Amino acid sequence: MAPRYAPSLRSRLAPLLLFLQTGFIVIYAFYVEIDSNVNVDGSFSRRIYPMFQDVNVMVILGFGFLCTFPVRYGFSASGFNLLVAVVGTQWAVVLNGIESWYYRGKIRIDVRSLLVAEMCAASALISIGAVLGKTDPVHLVLIALLEVAGFVLNEWLLQALLNVWPPNSFMLLYVFGAFFGLTLTWILHREGSEQPFEKEKFDSKSGLFSMLGAVFLWMFWPGFNAVLVDSRTPERKLVAVCSTYLALAASAVTAAALSALSSPKGKLHLIHVQSCVLAGGVAVGVSLPGIRHPWEAMTIGFAAALVATVGFRYLKAHMMLAYRRHDTCAILSTYGLPGLLGWLAQLLLQIRACDDRTTAVRFAVFHICTVLITITLSLSMGIITGLLLKWSSWRPPQDKKCFDDQAFWEFPHLAASE
Amino acid sequence: MAPRYAPSLRSRLAPLLLFLQTGFIVIYAFYVEIDSNVNVDGSFSRRIYPMFQDVNVMVILGFGFLCTFPVRYGFSASGFNLLVAVVGTQWAVVLNGIESWYYRGKIRIDVRSLLVAEMCAASALISIGAVLGKTDPVHLVLIALLEVAGFVLNEWLLQALLNVWPPNSFMLLYVFGAFFGLTLTWILHREGSEQPFEKEKFDSKSGLFSMLGAVFLWMFWPGFNAVLVDSRTPERKLVAVCSTYLALAASAVTAAALSALSSPKGKLHLIHVQSCVLAGGVAVGVSLPGIRHPWEAMTIGFAAALVATVGFRYLKAHMMLAYRRHDTCAILSTYGLPGLLGWLAQLLLQIRACDDRTTAVRFAVFHICTVLITITLSLSMGIITGLLLKWSSWRPPQDKKCFDDQAFWEFPHLAASE
Amino acid sequence: MAPRYAPSLRSRLAPLLLFLQTGFIVIYAFYVEIDSNVNVDGSFSRRIYPMFQDVNVMVILGFGFLCTFPVRYGFSASGFNLLVAVVGTQWAVVLNGIESWYYRGKIRIDVRSLLVAEMCAASALISIGAVLGKTDPVHLVLIALLEVAGFVLNEWLLQALLNVWPPNSFMLLYVFGAFFGLTLTWILHREGSEQPFEKEKFDSKSGLFSMLGAVFLWMFWPGFNAVLVDSRTPERKLVAVCSTYLALAASAVTAAALSALSSPKGKLHLIHVQSCVLAGGVAVGVSLPGIRHPWEAMTIGFAAALVATVGFRYLKAHMMLAYRRHDTCAILSTYGLPGLLGWLAQLLLQIRACDDRTTAVRFAVFHICTVLITITLSLSMGIITGLLLKWSSWRPPQDKKCFDDQAFWEFPHLAASE
Repeated sequence: MAPRYAPSLRSRLAPLLLFLQTGFIVIYAFYVEIDSNVNVDGSFSRRIYPMFQDVNVMVILGFGFLCTFPVRYGFSASGFNLLVAVVGTQWAVVLNGIESWYYRGKIRIDVRSLLVAEMCAASALISIGAVLGKTDPVHLVLIALLEVAGFVLNEWLLQALLNVWPPNSFMLLYVFGAFFGLTLTWILHREGSEQPFEKEKFDSKSGLFSMLGAVFLWMFWPGFNAVLVDSRTPERKLVAVCSTYLALAASAVTAAALSALSSPKGKLHLIHVQSCVLAGGVAVGVSLPGIRHPWEAMTIGFAAALVATVGFRYLKAHMMLAYRRHDTCAILSTYGLPGLLGWLAQLLLQIRACDDRTTAVRFAVFHICTVLITITLSLSMGIITGLLLKWSSWRPPQDKKCFDDQAFWEFPHLAASE
Repeated sequence: MAPRYAPSLRSRLAPLLLFLQTGFIVIYAFYVEIDSNVNVDGSFSRRIYPMFQDVNVMVILGFGFLCTFPVRYGFSASGFNLLVAVVGTQWAVVLNGIESWYYRGKIRIDVRSLLVAEMCAASALISIGAVLGKTDPVHLVLIALLEVAGFVLNEWLLQALLNVWPPNSFMLLYVFGAFFGLTLTWILHREGSEQPFEKEKFDSKSGLFSMLGAVFLWMFWPGFNAVLVDSRTPERKLVAVCSTYLALAASAVTAAALSALSSPKGKLHLIHVQSCVLAGGVAVGVSLPGIRHPWEAMTIGFAAALVATVGFRYLKAHMMLAYRRHDTCAILSTYGLPGLLGWLAQLLLQIRACDDRTTAVRFAVFHICTVLITITLSLSMGIITGLLLKWSSWRPPQDKKCFDDQAFWEFPHLAASE
Repeated sequence: MAPRYAPSLRSRLAPLLLFLQTGFIVIYAFYVEIDSNVNVDGSFSRRIYPMFQDVNVMVILGFGFLCTFPVRYGFSASGFNLLVAVVGTQWAVVLNGIESWYYRGKIRIDVRSLLVAEMCAASALISIGAVLGKTDPVHLVLIALLEVAGFVLNEWLLQALLNVWPPNSFMLLYVFGAFFGLTLTWILHREGSEQPFEKEKFDSKSGLFSMLGAVFLWMFWPGFNAVLVDSRTPERKLVAVCSTYLALAASAVTAAALSALSSPKGKLHLIHVQSCVLAGGVAVGVSLPGIRHPWEAMTIGFAAALVATVGFRYLKAHMMLAYRRHDTCAILSTYGLPGLLGWLAQLLLQIRACDDRTTAVRFAVFHICTVLITITLSLSMGIITGLLLKWSSWRPPQDKKCFDDQAFWEFPHLAASE
């Protein structure tokens, strides 16, 4: 059956990518220029460069290698992640610049634009974690285009309707990405694949590659959460770095404890520990504007690991059986639930900080609207994307080709060594 | 026999970690706050951030993956390293802040505090290199708590008694960690395990993961040695970065030469080369205050690789047989001997720089006291920790469970693929 | 036959390295000092440190792990890369300082000198990509010494004869390294090894290690291209970072498309994708001074991936058969052709920007001379180095020892596990 997929890359993926890249070059030729405002930008780019690199490492390396654990799917996980990231980033630069194009006729980019675009692409990388291994790269590229468009639309809606401060609305990327991905895997679900895929298992080396990705995400998460904080308020940037670090530390300790507690054999589970360790970074990122003290961040990290454990150990299998959602990289427990937890934590922290009842109620309504808009848009875009992919003749691979690099990659060594 | 250990994680590790993490959150809630002194700290944090990330990468990734070479122990080596690092860091933040708490009632933290705490945790990561594979994670967490306490006490003693400048006393972490770890492995030694462990061997892939860790340590060591140098003396920071780089380069060349020379078959040994390559960074870190010229750093790097080779090729096996100390990651030759060599080099360099004899003698006495206090405290804490672990009912794993991830980690793939 | 090579490391590599390292220490003792000009350098070193680390990561980790794909050659690829890099860097510091030594009697070094020296060593790392697996480490060290000398001579010639601005001439390191390496592999070619080496194949894990190296090169290439741009023109630095990022993105998308299009089975080829993805960074680095707009960089990235695909899929096999050049890491298609393409793109861009015809012709002559000098010197040095290595009694390994770590590294596990 292998030939069925191989030509699909040649006849479908290659034209799609060449069309997209040519399109990007044409759009950039007419509308995009580099912002060479020396005074402001020169110093800004020097300051922002180290944090830009941290985000770059997280997006390209961290998310890419985090999903390499399926034993025969390492090339696809890391390679398609890079592909989705670069398509998503180029696309997000254009979409983010529409407003500037409308008023000034040109989109001006600098290091910060690339950084913001890469963070938009990160929301697509979170979503594809749910369908990884069960889709082909053509689907992944289309998902990236639609998801980034949805996320930018969400950003714009939140700012236009509710006047949400951009760094705060941006952190909802975890929630948006997770619900989009879950809707997608539900729509794309096929009868007869209820049993877990055999090749989804990991071995001692593929688990270590995945550990490498998780460790990179863990190390650079403080930069990811802090980079969009206004550099004119350095004390908020400091709070962001320290809070994220402490929340990650708390969730690492808690994740190890809960993984052993919840395991039937009393042992740790590598992929589980990785997911839960990162949950602290997600939750604290969403609740950052409300955090004042280190213990608040640590409590959020603790609770995020708890929620992620429940999600991973109990919900993942249950969702599989009851709702037919197969979630490859456990994005519900890694990003979805901790993101909602962080949203709830911010609500509680901000209400506690309010002096009078009116302000508190007003903030609560505002805050609830924010998340409702995000989830609604995320689910709608997920349904649209899923139906589009299902309707089209672009069929997903058969079950026995799932989680297998050989469907997409040449293995020149096989003839020789086997 | 597997069930014997698995429940141990559930019944011992999980409660210990939950207790510790809850304790940390309570302590932080009452006594720790983020130092939001904008003017000073804002700019400082912007400058210190890139170097903080370098130390972060060394501690979490470098030390973690350096020890992944035992062929069936990769998950434990990298996972338990993260666990020990985050427990140690949270604990060190509290201990380092005791003085500030005593005078001001609150511990104020910023990026620098996290950095210093992570370096204290690094001394525990060095120590656990000696007992890795022969202990269970409960032991490792207890070792981290006691070792970090010992190291902070040592810092405090050196500053109180001898008025040693903090960045200088800090670099003794290599010596402290190595002697602590060696004492520990001697105390924890059991009869009947004199023969080398079978599973301690490496294969072509686990060796590469270990190489990855070594390369990360190698690359970021200049930042590690330079980060604590006072930023008001940029010329000393420059000397620190350049000296460390050149010493590492010299020890990389020398290590390759000596590994081939000392091998019975005339071949290189991967783990040996990794240890000796890093020896230059250790030695030059300890002797940094005395270094003025590049050639001094390079000579120290050369000598460190020589000393590390002798330690690895001859002392490791000898110690095993004669003194019953089994040193998994060769911490004696990687950190212990090069650390002492660096101490000696600093003594010679400083004496040579002295104008008159009285100053030289006074410095020598001061310098010898420094290292004697460190070694004494390190050995005492090692003996106390070892006896505590041996006395308690918390037994180490049996020999046949040593160096085996399956004692602690679920392997869901095994049922399917074998 | 194994014993034949093993002693060769002891009797040839070890004395060579000890001699070199002692020589470096002696030279540094007499002629090199750290430039402690506080005002200028202090601030400069603080700004340059993050970009220095990025180059460090590319040179030590990126180039090292990029070549780990041959299934039994991972230790050698990563280990010898480190060895060549540190020998090359120490040597380049001396050679780059000759002029300063001539006028001032001393070579003053700072972080920038180490950075420039490491970039000179990178040209040697590119060259050894062509002969990797077919040479022993003694050859690699000699190649590093001669190639770095040739590259520094080329830099000096270009500045003395044509007054080329250093950052621009530096970017020709890709072209210099590629043609040097290709000449070398042609001269060192032996009869009877026309058939592809069996052990050159990759497996699913060694491919992922190689992917890791490629991803690190991809992520830090913007820093590599921007670091030498004068920090007094921050707007050019910004253009360098953004252009390189966009060119890399364009070549990543194009590489995936063309790999599928050009494959006989319509599948992607991992090593091919890695090479072509990096081609954009090479080409845009060389053409950087002519780039003004993002679309120019993206078009260059697109064209570079196209050229690299043609080189990889058709020229590599053809060269092997027709010209007896075996190019292990496909350096012709990764660095050689994209480098020439970048040179051509710069020519076209600069001519288009010229106002009158005279200036354009003058620039074209100047630009053609630049590349002719570089290629001539590169080929000459390649021939000299190749003949020296062939003439000497230092024989390369036999074919059956090619691409095999066991010729150079101890494998203590083999006795036990097999």
